[in-house]
Amino acid sequence: MRITLIGSGNVATHLAAAFKNAGHRIVQVYSRDMQNAALLAYHVKAEAIDDLQNIDTETDLFIISVKDDAIVSIAESLVRYKKLTVHTSGATDLQSLSAIIPTAGVFYPLQTLSKNKEVDFLTVPLCIEGANEQITLELEQLAQTVSNKVYRIDSAQRKTLHLAAVFACNFPNYLYDVARQLLQDQRIDFELIRPLILETAQKVQGHLPGEVQTGPAIRNDENTMAMHTQMLEDEPGLKMIYELLSQGIIKNDKGGH
Amino acid sequence: MRITLIGSGNVATHLAAAFKNAGHRIVQVYSRDMQNAALLAYHVKAEAIDDLQNIDTETDLFIISVKDDAIVSIAESLVRYKKLTVHTSGATDLQSLSAIIPTAGVFYPLQTLSKNKEVDFLTVPLCIEGANEQITLELEQLAQTVSNKVYRIDSAQRKTLHLAAVFACNFPNYLYDVARQLLQDQRIDFELIRPLILETAQKVQGHLPGEVQTGPAIRNDENTMAMHTQMLEDEPGLKMIYELLSQGIIKNDKGGH
Repeated sequence: MRITLIGSGNVATHLAAAFKNAGHRIVQVYSRDMQNAALLAYHVKAEAIDDLQNIDTETDLFIISVKDDAIVSIAESLVRYKKLTVHTSGATDLQSLSAIIPTAGVFYPLQTLSKNKEVDFLTVPLCIEGANEQITLELEQLAQTVSNKVYRIDSAQRKTLHLAAVFACNFPNYLYDVARQLLQDQRIDFELIRPLILETAQKVQGHLPGEVQTGPAIRNDENTMAMHTQMLEDEPGLKMIYELLSQGIIKNDKGGH
Repeated sequence: MRITLIGSGNVATHLAAAFKNAGHRIVQVYSRDMQNAALLAYHVKAEAIDDLQNIDTETDLFIISVKDDAIVSIAESLVRYKKLTVHTSGATDLQSLSAIIPTAGVFYPLQTLSKNKEVDFLTVPLCIEGANEQITLELEQLAQTVSNKVYRIDSAQRKTLHLAAVFACNFPNYLYDVARQLLQDQRIDFELIRPLILETAQKVQGHLPGEVQTGPAIRNDENTMAMHTQMLEDEPGLKMIYELLSQGIIKNDKGGH
C-alpha cells in the first residue's frame, strides 16, 4: 500500500517504521515542523512536507496521527483527496472523522510508544474500526501485515480501552518515577528495583492482578502502612496517593469495586 | 548450610525452594498451622513442626519469615539456641531482632513473591544486613549461592526500599486491576491490555521512567483528561486517583517532586 503519514510523533514514528518493514511504501511524512517531518521521512525513505498543499495524491491511505484536537482541521484539509483516511487516537470517536471524510476509519495501537524505545510491533494490539464493513475489512487486512494482534473495537470500547490504558500504563510509569525519587533521596540506585517492576508486570501475563496482589495493604498490615505514611509526611501529595491506593486495595479485597 | 524456616508464607516458600535448589539442607519448616508447614516441608524434604518446642538444634541458620509483628515473639523463643538468625522483612530494622539475638541479620528479597507464581531466584535482588561484619559476610556468601544480585543495605535504606517497592509494585498491580474492572464493565478481555502492561515495565529496564512517560497528562491534553474524569463520575474513588496521579505527572514534568 502507498501510505501518507500526517504527523511525526511517537505513534506516527512507530507506525511508519512498522509499515515500511512490512513492505509498504511511505509516500510522504507531514509535520508542521519541517525538521521533525524530515527526520522521520529520512528513516522511512519518504518525502518530508510541512504544507498540506504539497500532498502527493498518489497515495492509498492517510494516517492522521496528531494531537486529538488537531484531527478535525487536518481532516478538513484532506477531504478533497477522497482517500481512505484513519486517525490513531484512543480518545476520539470514528464519527469525528467520518462526519468530514466518509471513507474513514481508526487504527489505534494499544501500546506505549516512545521514539527512543524500539518495540516488536508484531506484539502490539491494533484496534480497528471502519465507517463500513468494507473499510473495516481493508484496515483489518492492512493491520495484519504489521501485527499478530488485530481487534475490531468500536468507538465506545476504544474510549474505555484508552482510559484503562492510562491506569495500566501511564499511572504505573509515574509510580515507578515516585519510587525512583524516594530511592534517590537515600542515594539508592534505581537498578535495585527494576527486577521488581518487571516481575510485577510479568506476573499478570498469566494471572489476574487480584490473584497476585502483595504488600502491606492486602495483608492489612496497619503498622507498616502507618510507618509509610509517616515517612511521606513531607510529601503531602505522595501521602495522599499512598492512602488512596491502599484503601483501594483493601476495598478490592473485600469484594468492592 | 542447614537451614530452618520459621514461617510458610510467600517469602518462606520461595526462599526454601531457592536454598534447596542451591544444595542447602532445609531441616525444618515451622508454621502455627501444621497443614501449611507440612505442605512447604514436603516440597523441600524437610520436617514440618507447629510447635517451637520441637526445634531441631542441629541447624546453622534460622530464617524468620512471618508477619512483621510476630518477629519479636518468635525471636524470644529462638534466643536460647544461640544460632545465626535472620528476618526477611523490609519494614523491620535489624535492631528489633539483634536486641534479642546478638547473632542477627536481615535477608530481604526485594521481589513480589506469590506462592502460585514461579520466579527465577537468581534475578531476585537480595538485601543483606548483619549485626557485625562477620555476619554480614556470611550472609552475603550465603545469598550469593542463590542470587546474582546481592546488596549490602542498612536498615534505613531498607525501609526506603520497602516504601519504594509499594509504589513500584503493589500500587501498579492495583492499577492493573482497576484497568481490568473498567474493561470488564465493557466486556473487553483483559488480554488486550497485557502487552501494554509488560511493555511499560520493560521500557524502564533500560530507561528512567521520566524519559518514557506517555499519556494525556504528560501531553497536558486537558480535553482527554476531562473526558476520562467524566467517565469515572460514578466511581468517586477512581476519579480522585485519576486526578491525583495526573497532577503528579504534570508536576513532575515541570521539574517538581
